[in-house]
Amino acid sequence: VRTAAIVGVGLIGGSFALALRKAGFQGTILGVSSKETISKALSRKAVDEGVPLEDAVRQADLIYLAQPISRILETIPLLDEAQPGALITDAGSTKARILEAARRPGRKAQFLGGHPMAGKEMRGVEAADPELFRDRTYFVTFEKAGELETPAAREFLEWISKIGALAVPLDATAHDRLVAYTSHLPQLISTALAASLSRQMGNAAATGAGPGLLDMTRLAMSSHEIWTDIVATNGELDGALAAYIDGLKELREKLQRSELRGEFEAAAEFSKRLRGVTD
Amino acid sequence: VRTAAIVGVGLIGGSFALALRKAGFQGTILGVSSKETISKALSRKAVDEGVPLEDAVRQADLIYLAQPISRILETIPLLDEAQPGALITDAGSTKARILEAARRPGRKAQFLGGHPMAGKEMRGVEAADPELFRDRTYFVTFEKAGELETPAAREFLEWISKIGALAVPLDATAHDRLVAYTSHLPQLISTALAASLSRQMGNAAATGAGPGLLDMTRLAMSSHEIWTDIVATNGELDGALAAYIDGLKELREKLQRSELRGEFEAAAEFSKRLRGVTD
Repeated sequence: VRTAAIVGVGLIGGSFALALRKAGFQGTILGVSSKETISKALSRKAVDEGVPLEDAVRQADLIYLAQPISRILETIPLLDEAQPGALITDAGSTKARILEAARRPGRKAQFLGGHPMAGKEMRGVEAADPELFRDRTYFVTFEKAGELETPAAREFLEWISKIGALAVPLDATAHDRLVAYTSHLPQLISTALAASLSRQMGNAAATGAGPGLLDMTRLAMSSHEIWTDIVATNGELDGALAAYIDGLKELREKLQRSELRGEFEAAAEFSKRLRGVTD
Repeated sequence: VRTAAIVGVGLIGGSFALALRKAGFQGTILGVSSKETISKALSRKAVDEGVPLEDAVRQADLIYLAQPISRILETIPLLDEAQPGALITDAGSTKARILEAARRPGRKAQFLGGHPMAGKEMRGVEAADPELFRDRTYFVTFEKAGELETPAAREFLEWISKIGALAVPLDATAHDRLVAYTSHLPQLISTALAASLSRQMGNAAATGAGPGLLDMTRLAMSSHEIWTDIVATNGELDGALAAYIDGLKELREKLQRSELRGEFEAAAEFSKRLRGVTD
């Protein structure tokens, strides 16, 4: 890669740029964002230059889309003139809809979906961190075998490894189902708990709030703006939510029959395994 | 109080004994527990002497039941010979069933329900800590007005304050409804999430696990032994679970119609208020 273009220089885009630099990237890093964002990105030395999207598309051999999902979907059709041999990739949290949008027969450049499992509560390039991806899973989604074997894809996978992340290739639908269960469903469950408490208890809930309730309502503080796109574009989420509701109904019946032991034991065992705790 | 008897010298009972001592209690502290537990409690200086329950009942003017709820329910009928003027109290996590069991017309000693909102992941007198109740809510449940005004009740409330806790008087049913929403429902939700993930994803879930999922499955590691009694004796929990399931179904419909904004905003506002965050 000689010229990388970061489209959307926020927390993820800015961190990816800083991580590239820290990992020894010698080429040029272009930024495509609003004027204010570019000026912040320049002062953090995340990008070398702010350019319009058209210029980035013509110049870059790595185009990194780090926008919200709905913006990624709007940007993709504008990338048809990207260089042959260039790689376009994105960092959106759902993949099937993006990969569908990225099937552009006329385009010469390759598209590879990506989803770094990294983030923090602060947003914007101000919070960017070259270590953000260190030891994190970085999903790479593709449509056909062989897509990961092109020179551009191989080089991108090397950079993922150099910034400290672990590339995990995965089919887009399998990816969306996995994050539906491990990320998007937990978000909805936390939101529903906080909404239910707010309706049924109001401020009185504070008297009963211990560390457990704080854990269970932390995700509920997430901003709606981030989640709208995610839940709207994950086709696997509705099924995950339906399965969870069925599980709760079953648990309610078992509660009435005092038969919860099996449920508790399976849940405890799974949760310990998730943390690598064995007892 | 000249003689306090701790019945069940585990984490809570042991911590209460250590907290009394630290707060300047000069009387005798008797312990009622198994031989092994009493020997650990003696070496931690939590109790002065281990005695059989019958002796504790005759000698103590404060009887503190820190057993699991099912054991508290079994112990209460054995306390009818407690001294006139003595106070019997308990530390169980649900209150209506215990207060019902504690209506013993022949008994001269007063019964007052209690529930300290304190705990930690380790159990047993080994983990006891005189600071466990510091800055924590300590619910005190009663049946009739005036019960908090007896000399024995007033002195007990003073000790609650001296060990650093905040006594909050509450009707037993209101207490059970509050903890159903703020503690027992979050526990069931976490258990159901872990059970659902275990069924649907198995070990593959680990690849997608971020800090959010770890938060949401921490409670699911709780041991079944502790929770059996709690969920079996909280008559308000089934209603709370039903209301939560209805909330999730509504959220699922809104998800299908892309109308989640209101739900997210209400949930985020509530969760910030719970933490005293205003923005």
